[in-house]
Amino acid sequence: MDRVEIADWFKVLQDDICSQLEKGDAEGRFQEDLWERTEGGGGRTRIIQGQHIEKGGVNFSAVHGPLPQKIGNALGLDAGEFFASGVSIVLHPRNPWVPIIHMNVRYFEMSDGKWWFGGGIDLTPHYVNEGEARYFHQALKTVCDEHDASYYPIFKRWADDYFYVKHRKETRGIGGIFFDRLSGQNGFTKAQRFAFVQSVGKAFAPVYLHLLENNKDRTFEPAHKKWQLLRRGRYVEFNLVWDKGTKFGLDTDGRIESILMSLPPEVNWDYNVQPAEESLEAKTLSLLKKEIDWT
Amino acid sequence: MDRVEIADWFKVLQDDICSQLEKGDAEGRFQEDLWERTEGGGGRTRIIQGQHIEKGGVNFSAVHGPLPQKIGNALGLDAGEFFASGVSIVLHPRNPWVPIIHMNVRYFEMSDGKWWFGGGIDLTPHYVNEGEARYFHQALKTVCDEHDASYYPIFKRWADDYFYVKHRKETRGIGGIFFDRLSGQNGFTKAQRFAFVQSVGKAFAPVYLHLLENNKDRTFEPAHKKWQLLRRGRYVEFNLVWDKGTKFGLDTDGRIESILMSLPPEVNWDYNVQPAEESLEAKTLSLLKKEIDWT
Repeated sequence: MDRVEIADWFKVLQDDICSQLEKGDAEGRFQEDLWERTEGGGGRTRIIQGQHIEKGGVNFSAVHGPLPQKIGNALGLDAGEFFASGVSIVLHPRNPWVPIIHMNVRYFEMSDGKWWFGGGIDLTPHYVNEGEARYFHQALKTVCDEHDASYYPIFKRWADDYFYVKHRKETRGIGGIFFDRLSGQNGFTKAQRFAFVQSVGKAFAPVYLHLLENNKDRTFEPAHKKWQLLRRGRYVEFNLVWDKGTKFGLDTDGRIESILMSLPPEVNWDYNVQPAEESLEAKTLSLLKKEIDWT
Repeated sequence: MDRVEIADWFKVLQDDICSQLEKGDAEGRFQEDLWERTEGGGGRTRIIQGQHIEKGGVNFSAVHGPLPQKIGNALGLDAGEFFASGVSIVLHPRNPWVPIIHMNVRYFEMSDGKWWFGGGIDLTPHYVNEGEARYFHQALKTVCDEHDASYYPIFKRWADDYFYVKHRKETRGIGGIFFDRLSGQNGFTKAQRFAFVQSVGKAFAPVYLHLLENNKDRTFEPAHKKWQLLRRGRYVEFNLVWDKGTKFGLDTDGRIESILMSLPPEVNWDYNVQPAEESLEAKTLSLLKKEIDWT
């Protein structure tokens, strides 16, 4: 398959996910902004402000042109023409019992023939529900295992390392899978790598809608909402301080409103919050660490 | 004067500013947390959640020890023992007509005898009031001019460049003054540099209290509050993405709650907000640029 075929598939994935999320949200409808990049390509940013999804973005982009030198240096690539396409999603729910979710699938190629896929899905519950954490990781493991037995253990560990709020010494959430530069290593063909990325993309909506459906109507107290707003603060800290995708976008003059759609609609920072011992909040903090085997 | 004398003066400045701010706020009282740094030194973090100041921090620290290599590289310094002390302030008011303010004064020295002062004051109005912007810059110019005629023009431009939200192509606020590595250049003595830094420190409270007093009881609509929460989002973006002091603290395992006391208590990010033409919000955006001569 060539880059046009891959980008076209990403577009269809975006359509499909938006359609499923609208059904899951009941009232919300995506608003679309089309944008173009001066140097080549553009995207379709879609934002939902719904009944259950307070703020969510499902973005598609396909950009190309001369490789900016800053990116070349960061990726260890020689000058040339690049092409990059993908779908990127962040959903912030209203109900604090519903987790925040992020998904990204992407394809990159250079005019010299280099190509790779990257992506991942990770879950950030405001309150960690261990049963749902196991469900989530098992779903990802099932997707991975269909393609290669080595995928889940490697990509799960990669997510633990990537989605880490270093200055807080805590993971962003319960992790998931993360992978980058999947190319022809270990005899994998491009078709096999693409098939895996397609499976990841297709798994996203049903997994998230299951978690949304389970929790969207659960009652909550103001203290739970407060905790959600504080945890969203950590999400902002990760995205603005540590996330390579965000930094990459800001450094290379990407479309700011598309990059920063990942930021929550309402956030709190209080000074030195310390949850009570044995509280649900303390339990959540105790589970925000690497190397928990959820499967 | 030696480092003990300088740090002692910073402590007195912290006490004095806290006392003045408590009077200005009427109801709020600072809560103090003392902390120690494993490698040497520590600080006094003071946080106020008051009637008019929704969240504010007035921090003193004096730390010392072997210079971390990362800092040595960043500052172009050889290995050795360092000492750093200063006062750092950020105040987030409740009323959107009252501006956010930041002040910092600091002293740094190395065991090989190198020393310098740094610091600055800058103002971030949610709504730019041109009369108050002129008042603020004139007050800073008066402080600078008492010490050297070159200070204000150089340090004002430095603030324009430093307090710049590059990815938004807008200044954080209306700027102020910023200076760093003030040492014995151009024949200045250490006593002269310290006297200047003392003047900056002493100017802070009366200037801010004037702006607080002018605006703290002005009525506002929900739309004004909303705009304040959105502008606070820009403040977070600057501090987490661009501010060298914050990055320095996070990179070097500083006390996180003291570093991030600068983040606002309540923040909003909405997608692609575009103020109406001719609105107060649009006027404010038009004034968030470099090289405005407010004096």
